[in-house]
Order: sequence, then C-alpha cells, then structure tokens
Amino acid sequence: MQHTIQRPSVSHAAAQAVVEAAVRAAQGTPVAYAVAVVDAGGHLTAFARMDGAPVMAIQVAQDKAYTAAGFGMSTERWHEFIKDDAPLALGAPAGVERLVAFGGGVPIILDGHVVGGVGVCGGHWSDDVKIAEAGLAALDR
Amino acid sequence: MQHTIQRPSVSHAAAQAVVEAAVRAAQGTPVAYAVAVVDAGGHLTAFARMDGAPVMAIQVAQDKAYTAAGFGMSTERWHEFIKDDAPLALGAPAGVERLVAFGGGVPIILDGHVVGGVGVCGGHWSDDVKIAEAGLAALDR
Amino acid sequence: MQHTIQRPSVSHAAAQAVVEAAVRAAQGTPVAYAVAVVDAGGHLTAFARMDGAPVMAIQVAQDKAYTAAGFGMSTERWHEFIKDDAPLALGAPAGVERLVAFGGGVPIILDGHVVGGVGVCGGHWSDDVKIAEAGLAALDR
Amino acid sequence: MQHTIQRPSVSHAAAQAVVEAAVRAAQGTPVAYAVAVVDAGGHLTAFARMDGAPVMAIQVAQDKAYTAAGFGMSTERWHEFIKDDAPLALGAPAGVERLVAFGGGVPIILDGHVVGGVGVCGGHWSDDVKIAEAGLAALDR
Repeated sequence: MQHTIQRPSVSHAAAQAVVEAAVRAAQGTPVAYAVAVVDAGGHLTAFARMDGAPVMAIQVAQDKAYTAAGFGMSTERWHEFIKDDAPLALGAPAGVERLVAFGGGVPIILDGHVVGGVGVCGGHWSDDVKIAEAGLAALDR
Repeated sequence: MQHTIQRPSVSHAAAQAVVEAAVRAAQGTPVAYAVAVVDAGGHLTAFARMDGAPVMAIQVAQDKAYTAAGFGMSTERWHEFIKDDAPLALGAPAGVERLVAFGGGVPIILDGHVVGGVGVCGGHWSDDVKIAEAGLAALDR
Repeated sequence: MQHTIQRPSVSHAAAQAVVEAAVRAAQGTPVAYAVAVVDAGGHLTAFARMDGAPVMAIQVAQDKAYTAAGFGMSTERWHEFIKDDAPLALGAPAGVERLVAFGGGVPIILDGHVVGGVGVCGGHWSDDVKIAEAGLAALDR
Repeated sequence: MQHTIQRPSVSHAAAQAVVEAAVRAAQGTPVAYAVAVVDAGGHLTAFARMDGAPVMAIQVAQDKAYTAAGFGMSTERWHEFIKDDAPLALGAPAGVERLVAFGGGVPIILDGHVVGGVGVCGGHWSDDVKIAEAGLAALDR
C-alpha cells in the first residue's frame, strides 16, 4: 500500500506574482478588482483588494479561485456545462457551497497538474476573466 | 506611497433619519416592514422592525442594503442586468453570498459617492422599493 | 522563482486503512465512535461512524483530525501547551475555529512530514486517543 | 444634520507594504506565517501565506486583524483587559464571533485614526506580535 501521494501546489512566490500581475493589468482600466490565489487544497495563499473595489468582491474572488482549483476548470466553462442539464442548471450554483458558475476563476495548471486557482471580481465577469489571465501570464516567464 | 484613502460614509444621524422616514411612510399602509441602513463598508448602522413584520425580513432587509451599498446599484436593477446574461442569471443570485437580485435595496449616494445603502423587506418587492425611496427622501432636505 | 512546492499527503488507501483499524479496535469495547482522516490540507479523506455513535461526534472527530493535521501536533498536547499561558488558555480553544484542545486528534507523520490527521470521538478523550493510535498502527507495517 | 462622516482607511499600497515587510521579517526565522491586513471596516485588503504555514493560520490571521481593527487595540492587550473580569474572561473569547484574545493582531493607527489592522499567525503569539510589528514598521518611512 502506498501511504502517501505527492501533490504539487502553487508556491507563495508564484501566487504573489500572479496577484501582482493581475493588479498591474487592472491599473490600466477604470475598474478596481479583488484578486485571490488559492493553493491546490483551495486555501488562500495571496490576496489583494484594490482601492475602491466593491466589498462583495472580496468573498467572490476567493470563491472563484476555490471553484477553479476545486474542479480544475475555469468558472467561465460552468455555464456551458450546466445550461442544458436542467437539474444542474437549477441546482448546482444554488446548492453547492462556494461554487461560482460565471467567469473570473481560472485554474493554475503547471506541468499538467492543477496546483491552485486565481479568482478575480470587480467588473463584469468577462473583464474579470481578462484580469485573471493577465495574472496567470506572470507564470509563463 | 499614500498610506490612507478617505471614504465618506453615511452618518448615524442620517441613517436613523432614513429609517424613521421609511417607517413613517409604511405606517400609512397595511404592511409591516423591516428597514436597514448600512454604511459604505456594508455594516449595519440603523435598523427598525415594525410590529408584525416577518422574522425572515430581518435578514433580507440587511442583505438588500448590503447588496445596494456593495455594488452602488439598486437591487431592482439586478434583474435587468442579468436576465440576458445567462451565466450571471444562473450564477449570480445563487452563487454570491448575500446578493439579493430583486427590488428593495437602494444605494445611498451623496455628492457622487456611494456612502451606504437602505434595504426594506416586508411586502412585495415593488412595495419595498417605495418604502426605501420614501426613507431616502429624508436626505433631500 | 519556484512555481510549485511538493507536498506529500496521505493516500486514500492509507486513510481507509487507518479508519478500518480504528473501527476494529473499537469493536472490542462498549463504545461506538466516529473516526475521521483528513489529508495534509485538512480535507476529509476517509470517515466511519459506528452504529450508535453520537451525532455530535461526527463533527468533533473531523475537527480533531483537522486540528491535528493543521498544527502537526496531537490535540492531547494542547492542554499542556496552553495551561500556563493564560492568554492562550483563555483565547485559543474559544477563539480559533474548529480547534479542539483535548485528546483524540493525532497527526499522521510519515518520513518526517505531516501528511494528514486522524480524529476520533465517542468516548472520553483518553479512550478516543487509544482508538486513534490503534488506527495509526495500521501504517506501521 | 451632517449626512456623512469621513473615515480614513488604509490604502491597498500601504496594506501590501505591511504584508511584504512582515514576510521579509519572517524569512529570517524558522517559522512560516500567514499575514493579513484589513481596512477600517474590517475587510480583507492584502494577504500572504508563506509556504509551510499551517492551514489554520489563514483564518486566525484574518480574525486577529479584524479584532485589532474592530476595537482599535492590540489583541495582545485583551488578556490583561479580561483576566480579572470573570464574565468577560469566560464569555468574550468564546461568545464574540471572530474575537481573538491573544497576541498577533495590531491596529494600524495613522494620524490618530484606526485605519485598519494587521494579523499574523504561525508561531507562538509572542512571535506573531513581532512579525506584525515588523510589518507595521513599513509605514514609518
């Protein structure tokens, strides 16, 4: 019996780099965002709330990151996934704690492993997605 | 580096005036309401529950005020905002904690700043809106 | 910048073996227990509630496992740790969510790493500790 | 009637500077910490969890920051404040949600105003205090 499994998880340095890159990208826009990065276990690792970002964005950003890391899938894809499956469409966003089913949460995938997630909230979800992806680009270098 | 930002927030006196004006307006109707005012940070500042108002209205009134202050937008506008944006329609009311997507929460906007929110619950949401607006009129003088 | 860290975590097979060994040990006693194993991130990995175990034991067993994994220390040691540190004695069990400061939670340590925790609840905490340790013995082989 | 009050609150730039200075101070020690900064309203503004910090430290750091901002008093002072007041000693840490009554949360006070709080968790609370103060020193320059 194998007693342990090895799980790669985003480092604090990488999480912080993602948050900073997201904030930098946002500074060129008129919107203020909250940005959260969680590790492979869904636990908060780095976070920033820009001046003027809505108070409600604090929790939503974290929940988007959690949802993205939890299922290894962008939160933007949830709608496509559930829209023609009536029980899920009605039941999943409402019934699953912390599940966010619109864009702004993106999994952090490195070497084929889901090692965490980034969540952004502040603008329309389509803008949130762009800021999240700008944050993730910090790990391409 | 700028160490602080200045945020105007509704005073207790103004919050109390809004609650009192809302209750006065409600006294001419057959319905009993709960009325809540939160400050710019979403925190409860003044509250009244009229005799006979439903117990569940206590939390809903607070959540409406919180939603209105949180996004600086009347909760009545959420339906228009999300009804043709399928991911938000399915995901936002269900997935965002304390978000109320029907009428009765109105932001308190003074000199162009969102300084708080008022939330009313007890009747149909279209009645709740009228009571909230009657409350806000106390600040017009 | 190092993008990821590697974290060993208890496998499901090992977690299940711990639960089964704990239940087997308990079957020789008059008490019915709940037994929980969490992974390195504090998330539930295997669980059993014996017939007749108290409903409240379900959460306490999980909280003990979570506390043990969270700090890498047996929950039995918390009392020794805090009893002469008055601020912690007053503040820690009360103020830290899910912290259990009496026996029954034991960290799972393999090759020097905290890879999870086991928590047991049902009897007096001194009995709970024995069942937890009987469970952990399954990993000695 | 004065409709609004002006409340200074820690900026995101200052909050981030506090977190970074705390992490830098911690890197010279053997302990890994979680560090949180909240604004004047108690809302999370910046956060970092160092690699290896306990999962349970994530919430405790935030609760310490919240407690410090909430009462404008270091969490370290709570024990002195309640220890000879039996009802508070028994009742406050246990009965007040998110109240942490041991060291590691320090208010951020600028020009005589409580503009936020920093919370640190990971080591003994006496170490947590030092890291929090090292973080705050970033605002002295």
